Amino acid sequence: MKSTNHIKTDIEIANQAKMKPISEIAGMLDLHEDEWEPYGHYKAKLSLDVLDRLDSKPDGKVILVTSINPTPAGEGKSTVTVGLGQALNKLGEKAVIALREPSLGPTMGLKGGASGGGYAQVMPMEEINLHFTGDIHAITTANNALAAFIDNHIHQGNEREIDPRKVVWKRVVDLNDRALRQVIVGLGGSLNGVPREDGFTITVASEIMAILCLAKDLEDMKGRIAKIVVGYKINNQPVTVRDLGVEGALTLLLKEAIKPNLVQTLENTPAIIHGGPFANIAHGCNSVIATKMASKLGDYVVTEAGFGADLGAEKFLNIKAPSANIKPEAVVIVATIRALKMHGGVNKEELAEENLVGLEAGMANLQKHIETIQSFGLPFVVAINRFHADSEAEIAYVKKWCENNQVEVALSDVWANGGEGGMDLARTLLSAIEVQPNNYRPLYNESEPIVTKIEKIAKQVYGATKVEFTADAKKQLIEFNKLGWGNLPVCMAKSQYSLSDNPELLGRPENFTITVRELRPSIGAGFIVALTGAVMTMPGLPKNPAALKMDVDKDGNAIGLF
Amino acid sequence: MKSTNHIKTDIEIANQAKMKPISEIAGMLDLHEDEWEPYGHYKAKLSLDVLDRLDSKPDGKVILVTSINPTPAGEGKSTVTVGLGQALNKLGEKAVIALREPSLGPTMGLKGGASGGGYAQVMPMEEINLHFTGDIHAITTANNALAAFIDNHIHQGNEREIDPRKVVWKRVVDLNDRALRQVIVGLGGSLNGVPREDGFTITVASEIMAILCLAKDLEDMKGRIAKIVVGYKINNQPVTVRDLGVEGALTLLLKEAIKPNLVQTLENTPAIIHGGPFANIAHGCNSVIATKMASKLGDYVVTEAGFGADLGAEKFLNIKAPSANIKPEAVVIVATIRALKMHGGVNKEELAEENLVGLEAGMANLQKHIETIQSFGLPFVVAINRFHADSEAEIAYVKKWCENNQVEVALSDVWANGGEGGMDLARTLLSAIEVQPNNYRPLYNESEPIVTKIEKIAKQVYGATKVEFTADAKKQLIEFNKLGWGNLPVCMAKSQYSLSDNPELLGRPENFTITVRELRPSIGAGFIVALTGAVMTMPGLPKNPAALKMDVDKDGNAIGLF
Repeated sequence: MKSTNHIKTDIEIANQAKMKPISEIAGMLDLHEDEWEPYGHYKAKLSLDVLDRLDSKPDGKVILVTSINPTPAGEGKSTVTVGLGQALNKLGEKAVIALREPSLGPTMGLKGGASGGGYAQVMPMEEINLHFTGDIHAITTANNALAAFIDNHIHQGNEREIDPRKVVWKRVVDLNDRALRQVIVGLGGSLNGVPREDGFTITVASEIMAILCLAKDLEDMKGRIAKIVVGYKINNQPVTVRDLGVEGALTLLLKEAIKPNLVQTLENTPAIIHGGPFANIAHGCNSVIATKMASKLGDYVVTEAGFGADLGAEKFLNIKAPSANIKPEAVVIVATIRALKMHGGVNKEELAEENLVGLEAGMANLQKHIETIQSFGLPFVVAINRFHADSEAEIAYVKKWCENNQVEVALSDVWANGGEGGMDLARTLLSAIEVQPNNYRPLYNESEPIVTKIEKIAKQVYGATKVEFTADAKKQLIEFNKLGWGNLPVCMAKSQYSLSDNPELLGRPENFTITVRELRPSIGAGFIVALTGAVMTMPGLPKNPAALKMDVDKDGNAIGLF
Repeated sequence: MKSTNHIKTDIEIANQAKMKPISEIAGMLDLHEDEWEPYGHYKAKLSLDVLDRLDSKPDGKVILVTSINPTPAGEGKSTVTVGLGQALNKLGEKAVIALREPSLGPTMGLKGGASGGGYAQVMPMEEINLHFTGDIHAITTANNALAAFIDNHIHQGNEREIDPRKVVWKRVVDLNDRALRQVIVGLGGSLNGVPREDGFTITVASEIMAILCLAKDLEDMKGRIAKIVVGYKINNQPVTVRDLGVEGALTLLLKEAIKPNLVQTLENTPAIIHGGPFANIAHGCNSVIATKMASKLGDYVVTEAGFGADLGAEKFLNIKAPSANIKPEAVVIVATIRALKMHGGVNKEELAEENLVGLEAGMANLQKHIETIQSFGLPFVVAINRFHADSEAEIAYVKKWCENNQVEVALSDVWANGGEGGMDLARTLLSAIEVQPNNYRPLYNESEPIVTKIEKIAKQVYGATKVEFTADAKKQLIEFNKLGWGNLPVCMAKSQYSLSDNPELLGRPENFTITVRELRPSIGAGFIVALTGAVMTMPGLPKNPAALKMDVDKDGNAIGLF
């Protein structure tokens, strides 16, 4: 830990970093000159030709970083992911980091940026947290172009007989904007189209984001886009993008966005950042293309999935990995003393004080996520992501607990010390890969009924005793089965704060029911979304958004991006 | 003219072009290494530091390209602008082109692309026509972030007492989407904010687009953003962005977008493309920063303003030039035989046939635009933008007409022959600058009342006999004067197809009234928008949008971008 009085902010550390020109990072990965394009001096887009050239090269080992349920105390999963990548490189391994791109919604709202922290950040943090290389904007545009084509089709004669009451395609913005959750469009007379109820979601929940993240190449993406269900006819037959004939135009809008983005960490470790679905309302993993490319360019890929192991990791292991034929090597489960204490009932204001009783109570949350990763048959280690106020006794307690439970554990001090602070974790991880057996398998077969898949996730991953379906969801189950969608995997939408669908229940809740209130088809992405509890696909802004503290000086330097 | 059977499409010509690396184009302009950043191999963002470094260098000569009223026959103003820049360079002058960035709305809707045509195009045309360097997306995001902040402010207690019925800030998409013209937001109960009537405009009509195009630097942009009026209190006092405290965050979102973009033409003439307000619903000119920078980097700047001289040129000469202290040197008025014949009453289907009677009748439209440019006191030449089917007799007729009216004229064959086809035009222009007196002055003083400004434009530029204000507009006039906004210039919103506010009236309509139906304050941009006739700030898609023909092949090459 730094012992200076002033703890530097992420942006201060970032501004003092010495970045290498992106050409050097590309060189470290032995990329050919024509396989990357610069976007400024420190970002590059990578050509998908890399995957063809390295097709026969064996894949590097994929390490998945996940965590306990997040709390307002912070868990620092991205920070550990970045720090672990840096540490592996320090150990002489060739590691490449694969991350999601931050969404502007939480950046402007609560978080103020998401690119790791302290001495374990990806760079240039300002640009990564703002528009980056424009991929999310391209997705927003393609998503909303499709919405315009749908309403225009209805307005111009409705040849495909779309029922305006059954349009399921929503518009998006990459912002937190609760006023757009439920709207009526097409008002003002017949010049303005057909009035109908509608709503916006955040871009990172768009099916086009999911498709970009699951597609293997441009052709695969176009095929998936064509399969998107935009609505239904009066007779409930689905209408797809192919029926509207716009899959070519939408794919054209995404032709650059499909290329993964190369950047570097503070210690010049290569990082590929691409795609950014949230894990609570979407599938929560960076793109398959990015992970594949990282695994061809490095011997180790350190990647993360969003929120806790109940969300991002579950989806990585049940949706992304099987669909892309990725075989993960091991999992890192990140926990912080602070967050464990919150799970044990300690108030946020009291987290700075040592509290072994609270800590002990909170271990149940970690315990459940450990069981989840074990149920997938994967080697794993627990990483204690060290914070300033953690006491030695608290750290010793967690270590002892792990020892008693025969769980590998390592302290991660990457926030304060970068890669150097992750050496223990890296060594523990490499040894776990050697020693622990890898019997990875998804929790369910795609051929099982949707209900079974949801019940397996709810009971085995969340610890629920029961799953209830609302009347609407039951009707959808019947419809979806009729339409032949029963064999798709399920993408759960659930609060990230709790193992249950009630964000108030921290720790390890027991005897609870998961309520599935709605199912949504994402046929292009290749899954069914199940919305549980009160989870919303469009967040709202807090009373004092992070944006209030943001600014830019006259030389163009960002202020307030944490 | 090419005499081959197959006339190549713009995209075919573009794909065969030999682009130079953007580093070479930057080198041609003597830009320092740290003054530009690559965006791919053929685009760059330019640092505003260039303006400081060259502050004491005399400005290059600014040539404004405008045209007669556009018709479905096409006038080719961008093509002439690009071709003229190429021709000036061929003559040994150092010319830089300054253009607007195309909006995706018309690209996906009617036009299928807008970056010049034939052998007078800017490159890389695919990227310029799609997301380019992301500037428009950054504007969309900043615009919609502000909308989210407004609705969040009202929802979270409404400290500034914004009347939800008087929010004037609209959300935007860079698409043609008529269903969003009138909407209701905030439905679904108190969790989703406060319900209110709202509407979307196209991004290119956003005040933030206007601000970006009129700002001198980052600080000026922030100051202008702070002044944006977002709505009114119950007592009709305006509420501004400064009141909400988010001008810093919004400027941060635009810190890269404010940097102009360098590209090249098919003949490697440097072109700066930056900003893209439409001229019918906004002020229609590329950014002041781009024009200024081009005038520091070149001895001649060839720039265009949107649609006919009644719209883009009027705004260039009454709004942009005075506000930025730009002194234009000369104007090129582009006309085509085809469009003149349409103005003379010839049907679109019959344009390929020679029709001297129709042509003669159509000259009245050109005549009016000539008078307009004369009334600004500027040297000018008429450019006949040659099309395939123009007969020698028709061309001779226009030339003779110009001679009889003592108007300089030149044939432009840049579509078919690039810069070589623009040599006559370039020579005629250079001579006009030498010979014709330059008594440039705007049509009105800012101190004149809003009504007077509108009447001067309507009568002197459009040829109207009368201006009527609706009851709403009259009320707004009184309010705006009370609020001290009476001394701002006026940005007219009017149909581009006619000199009147009725798009059906081609040629040179007489004895018509202009109806001002609404005034909107753009205090950050520094003007009052006056909406006339039925002009709409959100276009709709046609029955068969250009998008239906668009596609991308598996190697990522665009199809259908004309």
